[in-house]
Amino acid sequence: MPEIHQVIQDYVSAWNSSDSEERMILMTKVLAENCVYVDSHLPETIKNRETHCQFIDRFREKFPELKLNLASSPDSHHGYFRFAWQMVKPNGELFTQGSFFGEIDEQHQITKLVGFVDVNK
Amino acid sequence: MPEIHQVIQDYVSAWNSSDSEERMILMTKVLAENCVYVDSHLPETIKNRETHCQFIDRFREKFPELKLNLASSPDSHHGYFRFAWQMVKPNGELFTQGSFFGEIDEQHQITKLVGFVDVNK
Repeated sequence: MPEIHQVIQDYVSAWNSSDSEERMILMTKVLAENCVYVDSHLPETIKNRETHCQFIDRFREKFPELKLNLASSPDSHHGYFRFAWQMVKPNGELFTQGSFFGEIDEQHQITKLVGFVDVNK
Repeated sequence: MPEIHQVIQDYVSAWNSSDSEERMILMTKVLAENCVYVDSHLPETIKNRETHCQFIDRFREKFPELKLNLASSPDSHHGYFRFAWQMVKPNGELFTQGSFFGEIDEQHQITKLVGFVDVNK
C-alpha cells in the first residue's frame, strides 16, 4: 500500500511541476510507456507517456496557476486504485474536482488512468 | 448515455433478484461472457459471467435481506463508467457503500467492473 501512495504522489507532483523535463523524469518513473489515459474533457484516449506529458504541458500553459491536490488517500486492491483529486487556485479556492481510477503493474507503474469530474459539487 | 444507465440498472436488478435463473438472464444481457470483476473483499479476480453469477448467488444466500441501490447517476465517457452504490437493510439502514468503476463495450455489455468500499463513511 505505501508503494502505490508514493507512485500517486509522484504522479501528482509531475502534474504540478512547471518544468517539462522534471515532469518527464517523474513520469518515466511512475507511468508505463504505453499507459492509457483519458478523462471526460479529452476527445481521444492518450496511449503513451510522451503524449501524456505533452497533454499536461499544454494544460499547464493554459492554467499555470492551478495546482492538483490529492483529496483522498489512494485506495487500492488487486492492482486497481482510485483517488479523489482537486484542482485549486493559488488562493485555495476550488476550481474543479473529481476522481481518478487506474491500474498499476508489478513494476509499480501506472498502466491505465481514467478521470471523472464531479459536476454537481 | 441513457443506454449505459439501462445497463447499470439491469445489473443492479440482477444483483437484487432472489432468483438465480432470473439473475443469469439479466446478466447474459448486460455482462460480457469474459467480464472481469473484482472488489476489495474478494481474494481473486472473477473472469467470467458464470462465476460472477455464482458469487452473487452466494452473497444473496448469506445476506438475503440486503438490497443494492444506485447512490449516484452513472457517469460515463469513452467506454468507461462509474457509479456510487449502497447496500441497505430492509429498514433502509445503510449496511455499506462504495463505488464501482467499469468498462463497457460497443455491444453495451460490461467488460470490467472494479468495486471499492468507502471505509470512513
